[in-house]
Amino acid sequence: MTPQEEARMRAQRAKNAARILAYLDTGTKNRALQAMAAALHAHTAEILAANREDITRAKEADYSEAFIDRLLLNEKRIAEMAGGLEEVAALPDPVGVVLSGSRRPNGLQILKVRTPLGVIGMVYESRPNVTVDAAGLCLKSGNAVVLRGGSEANRSNVALAGIIAQAAYAQGVPEGAIELIASTDRSAVMELMRLTEYVDCLIPRGGAGLIRSVVENAKVPVIETGVGNCHIYVDESADLAMASDIVFNAKCQRPGVCNAMETLLVHRAVADRFLPLVAERLEGAGVELRGDERARAIVPTMKAATEEDWGTEYLALILAVAVVDSLDAAIEHITRYGTKHSEAIVTSDYEAGQRFLQRVDAAAVYVNASTRFTDGGQFGLGAEIGISNQKVHARGPMGLEEMTSYKYVVYGDGQVRA
Amino acid sequence: MTPQEEARMRAQRAKNAARILAYLDTGTKNRALQAMAAALHAHTAEILAANREDITRAKEADYSEAFIDRLLLNEKRIAEMAGGLEEVAALPDPVGVVLSGSRRPNGLQILKVRTPLGVIGMVYESRPNVTVDAAGLCLKSGNAVVLRGGSEANRSNVALAGIIAQAAYAQGVPEGAIELIASTDRSAVMELMRLTEYVDCLIPRGGAGLIRSVVENAKVPVIETGVGNCHIYVDESADLAMASDIVFNAKCQRPGVCNAMETLLVHRAVADRFLPLVAERLEGAGVELRGDERARAIVPTMKAATEEDWGTEYLALILAVAVVDSLDAAIEHITRYGTKHSEAIVTSDYEAGQRFLQRVDAAAVYVNASTRFTDGGQFGLGAEIGISNQKVHARGPMGLEEMTSYKYVVYGDGQVRA
Repeated sequence: MTPQEEARMRAQRAKNAARILAYLDTGTKNRALQAMAAALHAHTAEILAANREDITRAKEADYSEAFIDRLLLNEKRIAEMAGGLEEVAALPDPVGVVLSGSRRPNGLQILKVRTPLGVIGMVYESRPNVTVDAAGLCLKSGNAVVLRGGSEANRSNVALAGIIAQAAYAQGVPEGAIELIASTDRSAVMELMRLTEYVDCLIPRGGAGLIRSVVENAKVPVIETGVGNCHIYVDESADLAMASDIVFNAKCQRPGVCNAMETLLVHRAVADRFLPLVAERLEGAGVELRGDERARAIVPTMKAATEEDWGTEYLALILAVAVVDSLDAAIEHITRYGTKHSEAIVTSDYEAGQRFLQRVDAAAVYVNASTRFTDGGQFGLGAEIGISNQKVHARGPMGLEEMTSYKYVVYGDGQVRA
Repeated sequence: MTPQEEARMRAQRAKNAARILAYLDTGTKNRALQAMAAALHAHTAEILAANREDITRAKEADYSEAFIDRLLLNEKRIAEMAGGLEEVAALPDPVGVVLSGSRRPNGLQILKVRTPLGVIGMVYESRPNVTVDAAGLCLKSGNAVVLRGGSEANRSNVALAGIIAQAAYAQGVPEGAIELIASTDRSAVMELMRLTEYVDCLIPRGGAGLIRSVVENAKVPVIETGVGNCHIYVDESADLAMASDIVFNAKCQRPGVCNAMETLLVHRAVADRFLPLVAERLEGAGVELRGDERARAIVPTMKAATEEDWGTEYLALILAVAVVDSLDAAIEHITRYGTKHSEAIVTSDYEAGQRFLQRVDAAAVYVNASTRFTDGGQFGLGAEIGISNQKVHARGPMGLEEMTSYKYVVYGDGQVRA
């Protein structure tokens, strides 16, 4: 079997399973999620053995420490994955919810009912936890999933997917609901992205390069996730102590994630007072500052920012800093360089806040809070499969509801159209 | 300027307009729609002159009568387009509606607020009315639009788009809100489909070939519309008089549209009684019947259906007919050949109806009604931009709400993430 044939076979199996999953009862799905969690505990040794092989090869291939840390599994991490499945089991089932309904003048009763999407293709990097997280969220939302993780994690992924799939099938989940493409050949994932007859939606999760490649090559509808070049704008009316706390949190609390701040914009009227204060705090935490001319005139320890800095998602302890002449100049900067992910203003001025909320085009716009809150859990969606960076289908954090579609169910008594 | 440069220039202008359109007040949008309607009336002679040129060339090029009829404008059709704009003005504004909201335990107030998508690319065939309909619906939903109609209607489209755009701009709509690509070169539309930086969503409207081409070539997210290979299944328990009315309506009332029936499935227990009855009525209306062996054994005037017939959207007075052994066999046939558009069962049996509604995967599933009701107006959505055939974003009739996205608006008082 060629890699393309494998992709096609798995997608076809997923499609067949999706037909049954669409109306599988909530109890069976929840029991399956519990069984999947139990199976991870029961098969921990087997998972760790597979992971050790991946780790050995990754070390031989001289991957970075951060890369190897993401790849690494241990008992604690496996228990966390199992705990995640149990949390998903406890969330409400999104399928079958009646979103709206009405009786039309001709007597037709029309219900708009939430359904699964069908088959979701997950394309992700070498993070084995995504295998389990995605499988759990897809199952709960009634979707079959075709998983394709990074090749460096392939032994771990094959072990994990096999264990959870068998546990789910033993509870009455249709075979094919959890498929993993074992071939690490690039042609397999290329084929997956073109299988419009079997796959309803692709969700890439990973860095900008992976996502660009999926958008470039897919024929199947894609939900772009994740790239966040997020800004915080400190207005002239800002409470500067609050602004300092928010900026520090948004940059330092977890710099490697998409909702972390990458550029700080400061109104010129408060730059003199604010920048020295916040620069000292940030530099004290090891943040490298890259400023425009006006920022460097105030804080000479900053490096000079280049045009490229404004468009960069560092995902690291680096921060670009610019002084702006006005709120509108800040909005202009964000419009030009932002990725429409999460954008915040710190202000005490009512009109400035409203203007920012209205005119900044992003999945999440904030007044007086850290951008770090853009997250399914923080927004109250339960778990999340990713953060959408596009406007079609779902925007921002995607929970179970965002992994669904709907159908119109129409009850008649002989109506024909005049 | 090359065709690609034109596409890029128009998309860029639309993007700039979309920034302002996103928060343009409802009153301005409605006044603009009224002014667009008035301008169509005022410039009827100019529109008809442009259309006459298109018609002359289409006749010279020997297009079919049906094609020329779709291309043709007259005073009545222009008045209908104007009336359509006035109807859109009267619909509620979908933008700014708060879809949900909550206060989180940390005090953050989070609102999910409906926003426009941004820039919509409309790719359609030689039906000049789509130019006006799409421009009106996009404006009301706060979207800028880049129009690209069939080349045979180009003179009509250029005239129409110019007239309505100027009327809208005179009312305060930002310039660029209604852009039409005047180049008929294929490279222009190819470029439009790849402009992910400017275009948020593509909606192709037309035949299967056009839609396939957009899905194949687009990098921008696409909402597939329209292809409907719709079935009606007459169950063994059906009221046969009702079934005959529904079948006749679904095939004959307007055969050229996507929600018309293309295949009739009849349970073997009632085929003997039902088929002669309905065949006589359909043949009397000029319908060509193409049956499987069992159907032809009952109605010998039917031609023999080939495998190809089951997968064909005739859009004409032709009907494929098959006798099936059971409800499940009907569902199986629909799953294999259907396009997930509109599917109906005629039955008096409660469980058969529920099983069909649950197990048939389509945008609209019906019990005891004609498939012809799958339509934005009939479903109570007001006007529609098309009928989505996919599960991502919107499914079934797309009204103003389906032309929107949303953003999360977050009000804080200094919250940072722990």
